[in-house]
Amino acid sequence: MPSKGNLVVAQSGGPTVAINSSLVGVVHEALEQDAIGGIYGAQNGIRGVLDEKLLDLRRVPGETLEGLRRTPAAALGTVRHKLSDDDYDRLLEVFRAYDIRYFLYNGGNDSMDTAERVHQLALEANYELVSLGVPKTVDNDLVGTDHSPGYGSAARFVAMAIRDTGYDTESMGPSSPVKIMEVMGRNAGWLTAASVLGKEGPEDPPHLVYVPECRVSAEALLAEVEAVHRRLGRVVIALSEGIRDEGGKSFGKALRGEVDEFGHRMKGGASDEVARLITAELGLKARVDRPNYIQRSFMIAASPVDLEEAYEVGRAAVRAAVAGESGRMISLVRISSTPYEFTTGTTPLSEVAGRERKLPPEYIDTSTGEITPGFVEYARPLIGDPLPPYSRLPAHFVERP
Amino acid sequence: MPSKGNLVVAQSGGPTVAINSSLVGVVHEALEQDAIGGIYGAQNGIRGVLDEKLLDLRRVPGETLEGLRRTPAAALGTVRHKLSDDDYDRLLEVFRAYDIRYFLYNGGNDSMDTAERVHQLALEANYELVSLGVPKTVDNDLVGTDHSPGYGSAARFVAMAIRDTGYDTESMGPSSPVKIMEVMGRNAGWLTAASVLGKEGPEDPPHLVYVPECRVSAEALLAEVEAVHRRLGRVVIALSEGIRDEGGKSFGKALRGEVDEFGHRMKGGASDEVARLITAELGLKARVDRPNYIQRSFMIAASPVDLEEAYEVGRAAVRAAVAGESGRMISLVRISSTPYEFTTGTTPLSEVAGRERKLPPEYIDTSTGEITPGFVEYARPLIGDPLPPYSRLPAHFVERP
Repeated sequence: MPSKGNLVVAQSGGPTVAINSSLVGVVHEALEQDAIGGIYGAQNGIRGVLDEKLLDLRRVPGETLEGLRRTPAAALGTVRHKLSDDDYDRLLEVFRAYDIRYFLYNGGNDSMDTAERVHQLALEANYELVSLGVPKTVDNDLVGTDHSPGYGSAARFVAMAIRDTGYDTESMGPSSPVKIMEVMGRNAGWLTAASVLGKEGPEDPPHLVYVPECRVSAEALLAEVEAVHRRLGRVVIALSEGIRDEGGKSFGKALRGEVDEFGHRMKGGASDEVARLITAELGLKARVDRPNYIQRSFMIAASPVDLEEAYEVGRAAVRAAVAGESGRMISLVRISSTPYEFTTGTTPLSEVAGRERKLPPEYIDTSTGEITPGFVEYARPLIGDPLPPYSRLPAHFVERP
Repeated sequence: MPSKGNLVVAQSGGPTVAINSSLVGVVHEALEQDAIGGIYGAQNGIRGVLDEKLLDLRRVPGETLEGLRRTPAAALGTVRHKLSDDDYDRLLEVFRAYDIRYFLYNGGNDSMDTAERVHQLALEANYELVSLGVPKTVDNDLVGTDHSPGYGSAARFVAMAIRDTGYDTESMGPSSPVKIMEVMGRNAGWLTAASVLGKEGPEDPPHLVYVPECRVSAEALLAEVEAVHRRLGRVVIALSEGIRDEGGKSFGKALRGEVDEFGHRMKGGASDEVARLITAELGLKARVDRPNYIQRSFMIAASPVDLEEAYEVGRAAVRAAVAGESGRMISLVRISSTPYEFTTGTTPLSEVAGRERKLPPEYIDTSTGEITPGFVEYARPLIGDPLPPYSRLPAHFVERP
């Protein structure tokens, strides 16, 4: 374990509203640790190390740090960069030049792979360095942790948005009966499943949820839409961008990859294709909401629980770094769901890197596509306070005098 | 003026987060007016009158009414229905049967046309009735009022969303430099212009704003995108769904209306087409956010000023009704911008119905497409409190030792 040295923290992959909270947690804890000299922030992830773009985080005013806890996106800038062999010598050279002994990488699966490679690199070069992963992903697909910072806030946005756009659809009446909201998560349905967290009654939106874990044929999907429409007169659908048909083909792919007769590449994702199908086959007008990056950046929808956890994960990373736990990722460990309590732990990066955690069978009934009460119990505490209640007019009709 | 009679209120057109506040304002004020007997809510706008689907709003608990002030969409249900000659006799028959003497119609341009027709119908039939319009539209395109309830809240959402997704784009670095957010408003740019209300500095997002009032060729748009990209390395665009090229053709039309080689109707709006253009012609990856109906329904982004005004407009409508001001729309009258103060007035429905108010030249520089400081002064108070401030890391770089 290094006796004293400088620390580098970096942000990687898709930003979230909580990733800066982890950064602030790192800085706050590092300021309290005697073993840590310089506290450096690499701009745009590992690129900032390779390019020697390191910000001095000891010089950031306290009020700026506090402000960052309520600032979305990645304050250091982020990157998607897979380390190549050419990068390794350069990395070591920079680490040595700046006496960097602690490397904290905040990101998702790919970033954990980077943190693991840096760990291995230092071992092989016999360079004294602690490399740690700090989890972050709105997709919630990291293994080795109960959940990932960033997920709870995006889940809260999705739950709110589907409820609000669902009320909108309901009040529009029969002229515009189908609403599709497309939700992030190409391979895992965690975020799409979160659309059920605002439901108060069984007929509340969303009425149908489609996640990548359950393949569905166009015919089956249309039959389900038709059945809900017949029953309720409206259909609100939470649809993963990664929904696949029974052959494993993405619904979005046809439109996304193909070229029209003018040679133009066609745009539009799964939701546009499903809307087209519903209108063409069922004759129902279908509207699409595609909030896309707003899901992971809309600050006022942030989950306070998520922001706090992200901050604590950052602090825990520094403590683990000083304790010399190289090659590990900080994890969130659930103590209880009711009342919700958590603590932090660590897990080997080698067991996390490159793996994807999908919705398990206890959270989704793969035969019906239903999100289970078990999922709700799991995810509900992560979005923070219950959504504010809404009111409905009682159905007291006036009789003709 | 009728001495005593029953009142019908109805909601029409696209819902907003504020339309229920107007409904509650109507009920609260009607409860205080001796001239008003029954307080009825027609389900799904004028359809509820034609179909005798009238809810007894005197029986709604006070706490439900309070809850509706924080419930998005139209609690009575809404409709898009243009009155036909066949409807007139039926309307009069229902009005007579239920002794309806006050008719309040809450909606946009088309709804004001309906309120005016009902006013004329009663006059011609010599049926004693007060018909009044209550304004509501996120498009803010009603004439005869400083602005419309519903606009301030949607504007607040748009300002927040473009800022947040803009921060996201900035932090992603050069790999994903262009973000397009598509904003509602097919013919008027009020809501798209509101995207500038969260700007703190000149280089904050959005960097480019495209409204329907300014036509722009694909070439000019691409040149502007390229220039911003060269200067900043990123480009965040607020793009109206109704953006048109120099020939007046909608950018979204090509994709929206056409049929592909398989006979499929293509989907995707203006933003998808512009993203395609930017990628094809400039080689820049462009991402699209299309929040669509979330813009007008996302309750936690509501402007408190908007909710209050919507409520007051509802109360004012009942007072005007009891005063016998048939054939008029309630208007919002600005007393001052700093500090912001407003009152209500009325304006003849005949001057409102079927007309559209576009962004005037003092709010948009049609030669450059720039939103003016005059617009900011106009719109800023309507979104309520300033957006919560964000923090940025100071650029103190560490020097190589």
